[in-house]
Amino acid sequence: MAKTNIPWEARPAGCSDVIWRYSKNPIIPRDLIPSSNSIFNSAVVPYEDRFAGVFRVDNKKREMNLYRGFSDDGLDWKLDHDPIAWEFTDSELSEFSHRYDPRLVWLEDRYYVTWCNGYHGPTIGIGYTQDFEKFHFLENALLPFNRNGVLFPRKINDRYVMLSRPSDNGHTPFGDIFLSQSPDMVHWGQHRFVMGVAGGWQSTKIGAGPIPIETPQGWLLFYHGVLTSCNGFVYSFGAALLDLEQPWKVIRRGEPYLLSPQRDYECVGEVPNVTFPCAALYDESNGRIAIYYGGADTVTALAFTQLEDVLDFLEPHSMV
Amino acid sequence: MAKTNIPWEARPAGCSDVIWRYSKNPIIPRDLIPSSNSIFNSAVVPYEDRFAGVFRVDNKKREMNLYRGFSDDGLDWKLDHDPIAWEFTDSELSEFSHRYDPRLVWLEDRYYVTWCNGYHGPTIGIGYTQDFEKFHFLENALLPFNRNGVLFPRKINDRYVMLSRPSDNGHTPFGDIFLSQSPDMVHWGQHRFVMGVAGGWQSTKIGAGPIPIETPQGWLLFYHGVLTSCNGFVYSFGAALLDLEQPWKVIRRGEPYLLSPQRDYECVGEVPNVTFPCAALYDESNGRIAIYYGGADTVTALAFTQLEDVLDFLEPHSMV
Amino acid sequence: MAKTNIPWEARPAGCSDVIWRYSKNPIIPRDLIPSSNSIFNSAVVPYEDRFAGVFRVDNKKREMNLYRGFSDDGLDWKLDHDPIAWEFTDSELSEFSHRYDPRLVWLEDRYYVTWCNGYHGPTIGIGYTQDFEKFHFLENALLPFNRNGVLFPRKINDRYVMLSRPSDNGHTPFGDIFLSQSPDMVHWGQHRFVMGVAGGWQSTKIGAGPIPIETPQGWLLFYHGVLTSCNGFVYSFGAALLDLEQPWKVIRRGEPYLLSPQRDYECVGEVPNVTFPCAALYDESNGRIAIYYGGADTVTALAFTQLEDVLDFLEPHSMV
Amino acid sequence: MAKTNIPWEARPAGCSDVIWRYSKNPIIPRDLIPSSNSIFNSAVVPYEDRFAGVFRVDNKKREMNLYRGFSDDGLDWKLDHDPIAWEFTDSELSEFSHRYDPRLVWLEDRYYVTWCNGYHGPTIGIGYTQDFEKFHFLENALLPFNRNGVLFPRKINDRYVMLSRPSDNGHTPFGDIFLSQSPDMVHWGQHRFVMGVAGGWQSTKIGAGPIPIETPQGWLLFYHGVLTSCNGFVYSFGAALLDLEQPWKVIRRGEPYLLSPQRDYECVGEVPNVTFPCAALYDESNGRIAIYYGGADTVTALAFTQLEDVLDFLEPHSMV
Amino acid sequence: MAKTNIPWEARPAGCSDVIWRYSKNPIIPRDLIPSSNSIFNSAVVPYEDRFAGVFRVDNKKREMNLYRGFSDDGLDWKLDHDPIAWEFTDSELSEFSHRYDPRLVWLEDRYYVTWCNGYHGPTIGIGYTQDFEKFHFLENALLPFNRNGVLFPRKINDRYVMLSRPSDNGHTPFGDIFLSQSPDMVHWGQHRFVMGVAGGWQSTKIGAGPIPIETPQGWLLFYHGVLTSCNGFVYSFGAALLDLEQPWKVIRRGEPYLLSPQRDYECVGEVPNVTFPCAALYDESNGRIAIYYGGADTVTALAFTQLEDVLDFLEPHSMV
Amino acid sequence: MAKTNIPWEARPAGCSDVIWRYSKNPIIPRDLIPSSNSIFNSAVVPYEDRFAGVFRVDNKKREMNLYRGFSDDGLDWKLDHDPIAWEFTDSELSEFSHRYDPRLVWLEDRYYVTWCNGYHGPTIGIGYTQDFEKFHFLENALLPFNRNGVLFPRKINDRYVMLSRPSDNGHTPFGDIFLSQSPDMVHWGQHRFVMGVAGGWQSTKIGAGPIPIETPQGWLLFYHGVLTSCNGFVYSFGAALLDLEQPWKVIRRGEPYLLSPQRDYECVGEVPNVTFPCAALYDESNGRIAIYYGGADTVTALAFTQLEDVLDFLEPHSMV
Repeated sequence: MAKTNIPWEARPAGCSDVIWRYSKNPIIPRDLIPSSNSIFNSAVVPYEDRFAGVFRVDNKKREMNLYRGFSDDGLDWKLDHDPIAWEFTDSELSEFSHRYDPRLVWLEDRYYVTWCNGYHGPTIGIGYTQDFEKFHFLENALLPFNRNGVLFPRKINDRYVMLSRPSDNGHTPFGDIFLSQSPDMVHWGQHRFVMGVAGGWQSTKIGAGPIPIETPQGWLLFYHGVLTSCNGFVYSFGAALLDLEQPWKVIRRGEPYLLSPQRDYECVGEVPNVTFPCAALYDESNGRIAIYYGGADTVTALAFTQLEDVLDFLEPHSMV
Repeated sequence: MAKTNIPWEARPAGCSDVIWRYSKNPIIPRDLIPSSNSIFNSAVVPYEDRFAGVFRVDNKKREMNLYRGFSDDGLDWKLDHDPIAWEFTDSELSEFSHRYDPRLVWLEDRYYVTWCNGYHGPTIGIGYTQDFEKFHFLENALLPFNRNGVLFPRKINDRYVMLSRPSDNGHTPFGDIFLSQSPDMVHWGQHRFVMGVAGGWQSTKIGAGPIPIETPQGWLLFYHGVLTSCNGFVYSFGAALLDLEQPWKVIRRGEPYLLSPQRDYECVGEVPNVTFPCAALYDESNGRIAIYYGGADTVTALAFTQLEDVLDFLEPHSMV
Repeated sequence: MAKTNIPWEARPAGCSDVIWRYSKNPIIPRDLIPSSNSIFNSAVVPYEDRFAGVFRVDNKKREMNLYRGFSDDGLDWKLDHDPIAWEFTDSELSEFSHRYDPRLVWLEDRYYVTWCNGYHGPTIGIGYTQDFEKFHFLENALLPFNRNGVLFPRKINDRYVMLSRPSDNGHTPFGDIFLSQSPDMVHWGQHRFVMGVAGGWQSTKIGAGPIPIETPQGWLLFYHGVLTSCNGFVYSFGAALLDLEQPWKVIRRGEPYLLSPQRDYECVGEVPNVTFPCAALYDESNGRIAIYYGGADTVTALAFTQLEDVLDFLEPHSMV
Repeated sequence: MAKTNIPWEARPAGCSDVIWRYSKNPIIPRDLIPSSNSIFNSAVVPYEDRFAGVFRVDNKKREMNLYRGFSDDGLDWKLDHDPIAWEFTDSELSEFSHRYDPRLVWLEDRYYVTWCNGYHGPTIGIGYTQDFEKFHFLENALLPFNRNGVLFPRKINDRYVMLSRPSDNGHTPFGDIFLSQSPDMVHWGQHRFVMGVAGGWQSTKIGAGPIPIETPQGWLLFYHGVLTSCNGFVYSFGAALLDLEQPWKVIRRGEPYLLSPQRDYECVGEVPNVTFPCAALYDESNGRIAIYYGGADTVTALAFTQLEDVLDFLEPHSMV
Repeated sequence: MAKTNIPWEARPAGCSDVIWRYSKNPIIPRDLIPSSNSIFNSAVVPYEDRFAGVFRVDNKKREMNLYRGFSDDGLDWKLDHDPIAWEFTDSELSEFSHRYDPRLVWLEDRYYVTWCNGYHGPTIGIGYTQDFEKFHFLENALLPFNRNGVLFPRKINDRYVMLSRPSDNGHTPFGDIFLSQSPDMVHWGQHRFVMGVAGGWQSTKIGAGPIPIETPQGWLLFYHGVLTSCNGFVYSFGAALLDLEQPWKVIRRGEPYLLSPQRDYECVGEVPNVTFPCAALYDESNGRIAIYYGGADTVTALAFTQLEDVLDFLEPHSMV
Repeated sequence: MAKTNIPWEARPAGCSDVIWRYSKNPIIPRDLIPSSNSIFNSAVVPYEDRFAGVFRVDNKKREMNLYRGFSDDGLDWKLDHDPIAWEFTDSELSEFSHRYDPRLVWLEDRYYVTWCNGYHGPTIGIGYTQDFEKFHFLENALLPFNRNGVLFPRKINDRYVMLSRPSDNGHTPFGDIFLSQSPDMVHWGQHRFVMGVAGGWQSTKIGAGPIPIETPQGWLLFYHGVLTSCNGFVYSFGAALLDLEQPWKVIRRGEPYLLSPQRDYECVGEVPNVTFPCAALYDESNGRIAIYYGGADTVTALAFTQLEDVLDFLEPHSMV
């Protein structure tokens, strides 16, 4: 995996929040490409000497699909004008229904993409690329109805490991995080419950966000939580720490959220009141973390934190 | 019908959209008259040497009613402070419940108004005026529950023709466009299905917008479509082309929307995320079209296009 | 119209109910023909020297369709094994979706059939036969969504008159009775509200039952009413008297029901707790009325009364 | 009760509204204290030579709790960083579930606080303080499920009197105002219906707002009303006048609302489209009224009026 | 209170159930009086040398009201043909909406009746009679929405004590048992949570049944519980033991139900699958208990047990 | 696998149905064992010289669990009085929530049991026994929410194959049949859509029933289908034929149902109108099939057919 300077901006003076927003948010407007209605909930990785990404773009038909993008600095992005053309080995699986909310991870020898894939209902599609030119579809890891499938960046106990959130076929009003294991990325089992809804901002449903970050203390997981107000869902996000070897065991789980929809680009748009993280860049050398998140299901925004700060926050604010 | 210069503003530099917004939107604020809570989803026609309109005004009791207005340029409007007082011949029909979302059309020898009329449920009321002074109520064309009744501007095959969208008695979560025919504007039959919901932005319900515009290629229909997000309805609008002689046959139907709620006055207000067209002025001499639409069920806005551009767009983007 | 002795059985000793059941109910079992799942909510008329009927038969695919039947005595019925094959003049209308809950009336020179006809939603189909051999489809009288279309047996003020119950596209939880008028059986208008839901057994929705019976006092209408218990709908039926010349004016309306689901064949079956009248035979010479009604959406049953008794009941028990 | 100059700003030039907003709204931002997610729907009284208040603060766990605050001018507030620690005599009642939407009133010899208190469901908790240092919990006045409990500022006919709005355990879609009476602030009875939902802005549910203001003409009650649009609840507020001696009798009730969500801080936030009044300061010497209300369930705002103006408005605009 | 032999039938041979049904059930058919649609959920007490009762009768309008009845043996009942005419002191409370599910208890010097009383929603009405001739309405004890108000047969700690189940304005899908206390039968407070829903048959809602029976071990409470199947509610009943002095404290609570709908008269009728106890006669001399319960919201049935057997059952089967 | 005479009764004279009921149904009453509320939806296999079964028993707490039973003739069953005590290797999975609707199959060297297993939601548990004495829990094959997991009786293309019906966490109003494949009974993937809802009796959801029967023409699958009437779900069952090598390909699918709830023990009980098959015994020597199915979620019943008859029926009645 390539080495690149991740985007960064220091914590604003006077700000005591664990996570702070990029001052020039949103970094990707809804109309970056001619056909786009909105661009959000997207995934990025360092690639060679720049950054590559897989983006959720809803076009003006309101089809949901995945688009490739590149950036030199992680802030200024160029996106293809056409969606990724997946290569399929089984034509049964190649019919397009919808693809959205991608995650992207370097694992062993390639970049795996997971996303919410429509196959007689939303489920978790897995594909990969080795060069960001050819993208291969592997299989749907799980049965419908599922969303927010997130791979761990390495095998654990000789098994690939994925988080996901079983759901239903609509705007699911429930949802807990489970973990599944696989010897081959195709067959998944040994499913374990990781954590369920809790109070307040995470009382309706929760779902894994970016690829978990490995730390000596455990896997750091940013995850979104949803509260149902009388006027709809509110998506915030927080953090948890999972056991390194038995990652379905929760070591810490923050009771307060870390970021909630408060700015115009988070509160106004296709779906008001959404902050939804799908990717995080982590620079181990200095502890910096840059989190990419969708605002109002309309635009892509960025927030920053330090690993240290998140761990320090979780310690006293954990419900576990 | 009078001849007047319709409002116009050229496509902004760099804009490749088929339809573009008026730069001074909204043209009618919510509080134009003292009693108004909101003014939107309204109908205008050229009248004598200026423009006349029938406007949906929700007052501060949140009653929905129709108000008359005039404008010299189609941009700057004066509205009566009291609603239109309809003259009834059958007292059974005269009780006020609600009147909203008017359409207005010159047909043969008079201006017909159709609107969503409360008579033991929402249905399509028909009335007319010849001078914008006296307004006569004719009949409810259809049984409840119905909305978005839109007349064609001339008889077809010796029948008056109306589009409508059958619905239910609440915030209807379904809705297709039907067509009905009448020998006398009172009795309606030979109902035909025109088109139903389709993917994306038009997946929950659709309804006819302005009076169809006759073109050599067919009747040009702007219509709204609704998508249900997890936080409610999103109203966009697009276009279709109907057969000249059998107008229940759809010749073209655009897959992408033409305009969706993206500006503050479309996304924030009584009902967030609504763009709802009810009238269009068309200047045959130069192909200009000015579309009046409601923003967020709160204000009235204006957008422009050229007939040519819409037809050019429909050709390659049609789902039919 | 032919003259035949209608089925009859005297009021049981000790019974003071206005309407009493036939002692050998149900008269038509669910499996009278090999393909039938259930036979109910059906229409009969005297025809030549016997009785003819149009029956709702749900087959074992659970398709709902109309079948012809004949009986010598109105009790013992023979049904065709195949549904009625309607003749269409407009192929647009000929696609089968569902047909159910027929009514049958001799009007001027032919037998008209009306029923709930699937055309992009349930609406009221009108057809006719002159010989019970050929059945001609005319038109859908109204737009979806509608059910329980019932014609009056003669023109009133030179207009055909029909009752109907506007509804939605599901198991409609509301419903009032409206009246529509037509010069030609094709175009309908001058819609008037007749009566809406009231307390108790008729608090969820109501719908016209058999063809109204003309009496000097007014049109006698039997109609069903629905109450929503915590375990679903309960269908009972009662009676009202409508003005002879302005039949949307209700002269009498019984507060108590006349018959409610109490017997096993009314309480147990496809839809528990349904008694649903669709036809009545009336012998003017002796005042006898035989009412055909569906039991539990499964079988066909019969009940009896005297015109006199119904009128005597309505007088003191009317809510009007 | 102390005497203090209440906040005031004259009606803006050209404004004819009965109630007008403070030009520097919102007066309390959502993040006034480090742990707060939002601060709104709060109660204030004059206290000694300044103002004291009990505030609804939702923290970043999205717990709802009550916080004490003080202000010299009623505009600039200092809030404690920790919630009020109630003193309980019965441990059965001391478990924290949620506390929100407080009201505050000087009654006889102390400041009573009422609020929506979680005790196996939302109900009306009553507590008091004499010095804004110690806060004593008394009892839950009523059984769940109830909200918007508002005390009158003096006994009437030797009974304490409270308004409330019975509800259910969710985002209640109904709600009328009732009145209950008590000899001892603990046992409540002689419940009377005051007023129910009406048209338009108050058609879904209504609830008492600030402590009623005694005037020679009756008790002036500001109350919120809710309309259900296709995209959720809209909270406006209006006014009514209740009989001085039999306060469940409504003398006047305004049909138009007095203030509805129209500004950004009312339309955008945790719950879009909410204006929710919980407190009013009244200066009898000059008739000025300052109303504190929550905006979008996020911030606290202020509006002004004159008693005279409200009474003058109610006279001709009353539905009673 | 009078002394009479309560109805009795020995446990059938081979039956090991704690509660067994009367072999001639139902004891009261749905049509015992001419106007009745159903007679169920009713209350009885020994009175003079026979039995008196207050019965829920739904008439053929489907109005729900209370009727007086007498019986010599508790099995064969005569009911008035007209409902009880309550005497009111406050005309505000005298309008009839609905009255149902009565309970009846001798308390101090009179028979108190409590029932679900319609006053702008269902709540708990309290009335009394001293002679079963005159019935006096006292007050609504609680605010709507409430049901199943059940008095204890004596004051506890100098307070009248009542159980109730707060609910909503429909077919409530939730419901726990609370307790309220009163010095005067008019004002109620010191509300305490008694017990909530639990697993299986009592997972949707629970409500107190007959007047609690005082035993040395505690107050024996029979109560109904509701399970929601995919086809509706199922009402069973079980037993609990409450602390004698602090009756909101549950000492024992049976996990299995004691009786559930299994016979035709419990499974088929107005509301399938209901067994709903409202009264119990207890003969302290021999431990016999006769429980009156409604079957399918249609008829009245009887079941028997011995106090000893219930207590013996609760001991090992308690979830507390 | 042992060889035993399966239960049998010849088709009744005059019956032309493909499937006919056992004349002494139900074969297992709801109260066969003291603790049972109902016994239904159960699985049987030939075992040694008799029959063994795993039964769904809901006890009087309304817990759902699995019980072992034996029978000499497949008609007269003895059930254990206590549920099966599964042996777990991972304690994480051993907590009891609910277990229901078992299927049972001899596969390679043991009897596998699959059922709806509660693990943070309903999913498919897999266990096995070799002697009907010790029962071992293996794993949950799939994530919640799933039901009706049915194994094929042999590996296909070297993979274990299972049908299942993804669902939600309530009384799921949707549901199609999918197929999953596994190399080891623990990890499952290569999920394929088999068939979805279709018209009429199978329009709400469908789910696999007994273990598929291998025939030269394909795998014969009996499956249930659900129709939603206005009073709830109706469960019927029909048949389909799946490709031998690619069993997600449907070769035949019967449009009419084969059996629907029509008898009292199918229409009246815990859940009215349910016939739910979970097991079939097939005697290859004579083509006889005995189908065990649950009636009204209350009792266990039996029906018979001949393989030949089912195949003959599918040929002309297939929708494929």
